[in-house]
Amino acid sequence: MRIAIAQGIAPGTDALDAAAAEAAERGARLLLTPELSLTGYAGGLRGAPPVAGAEEIAARHRVALVIGGPEREGGAVFNTARLIGPDGAVLASYRKTHLYGEQERAAFAPGAEPVVQADLDGLRIGLLICYDVEFPEAVRTHALAGTELLAVPTALMRPYEFVPRVLIPARAYENGLHIAYANRCGPEGEHDFAGLSCLAGPDGEVRARAGAGPELLLADVDPARNAAARAATPYLADRRPDLYRTIARSTRT
Amino acid sequence: MRIAIAQGIAPGTDALDAAAAEAAERGARLLLTPELSLTGYAGGLRGAPPVAGAEEIAARHRVALVIGGPEREGGAVFNTARLIGPDGAVLASYRKTHLYGEQERAAFAPGAEPVVQADLDGLRIGLLICYDVEFPEAVRTHALAGTELLAVPTALMRPYEFVPRVLIPARAYENGLHIAYANRCGPEGEHDFAGLSCLAGPDGEVRARAGAGPELLLADVDPARNAAARAATPYLADRRPDLYRTIARSTRT
Repeated sequence: MRIAIAQGIAPGTDALDAAAAEAAERGARLLLTPELSLTGYAGGLRGAPPVAGAEEIAARHRVALVIGGPEREGGAVFNTARLIGPDGAVLASYRKTHLYGEQERAAFAPGAEPVVQADLDGLRIGLLICYDVEFPEAVRTHALAGTELLAVPTALMRPYEFVPRVLIPARAYENGLHIAYANRCGPEGEHDFAGLSCLAGPDGEVRARAGAGPELLLADVDPARNAAARAATPYLADRRPDLYRTIARSTRT
Repeated sequence: MRIAIAQGIAPGTDALDAAAAEAAERGARLLLTPELSLTGYAGGLRGAPPVAGAEEIAARHRVALVIGGPEREGGAVFNTARLIGPDGAVLASYRKTHLYGEQERAAFAPGAEPVVQADLDGLRIGLLICYDVEFPEAVRTHALAGTELLAVPTALMRPYEFVPRVLIPARAYENGLHIAYANRCGPEGEHDFAGLSCLAGPDGEVRARAGAGPELLLADVDPARNAAARAATPYLADRRPDLYRTIARSTRT
């Protein structure tokens, strides 16, 4: 499956429509956008209403979308990413479980579901958001649940380039799956985002890598590579879950 | 604490004595050797008896040692690494829990204790062996148990250079601790070992890196860097153990 990553896309329906048109024209079946793409990062922290119309854009261009924005439920606001199918239907909706820093914890309530997935063209796609993917437990939990492509909208800031350069390929390798990491880029108010969006393969190879500026990045996901990587090094089969009990034990008192 | 890594050291007391002498002279307090260093890798698979005298060598040079060899108990043979103090006392003894491939599973029984540690000069040192460290769960379990320096004798073969180049720095970064990775190097019978021993710091920085051939690598462990890394990105505090239950659940039926 060919995917596209709209690094640094501006909030608003015009930019999303243009990116979806280009992605579809270049053969992509799925277009990823960064964390809180429908409001901008600062707008998302303020709880601004996401722009409407993503479903119509997906259906118009026959391309699936991963988009993000604040989601209100009762008195709570979640940092949510959605997978919208190429017919405009919402296939999956995930609420960020690992909130980053004081600003996010003030703005959002944490999600309670570690694994949200949907199938697209026979590929099992899972969703995580930014800081989530830095926790090996979060990605392992997806691998154990059968995720083949982990789609990760993010808003990673400088100087944390270690994350896209090293941690993301490590996560893909140690779990034998693909990870698509879609970042913001450049300065936005007080924040300075690192770019470096990528598709990391299950053999640890970075199949495509963006630079520091806005870019539509194309890359191909091949689930046969997942199977080959897991045959070469069967991490999932060789685990010793009986020895991992402290990982699931709460240490808060 | 200054440490030394004897990449590609030959089995036998003479080589160990010479390496300990040089490590001590160059200010190291701890000398690491590769997996099954007291027998060679193939000898270890055959269950050859480890050469004796490591305790005397540690005491003679006043340098702690991490050494490895097959350990017999009843009818079982374990792949064991030991930390010997600078007075020659055995401080910790760890049996490899994640055996790699058919050869190791035929030769060894798996260990049952995920965390074996000892304190040396106020530093909490933990032991893992080779394949163990590729499992994020194994290193996280050490971090949760307070390990500050993870000492990892290994016998990593080509073409798995991704492990020392990417996975080891990732493990150090995501857990906020130091990892010393001591490898064999070059051909030994049917095996071809990758070298690339290293000390990875908690900020993901590789503090020292060996090449492809035999080498005594020196590097400094600074636990203040662990604290600084965990203050910068509090992975351990921000975990959501309530969401990680499947990780500790056996999937075997």
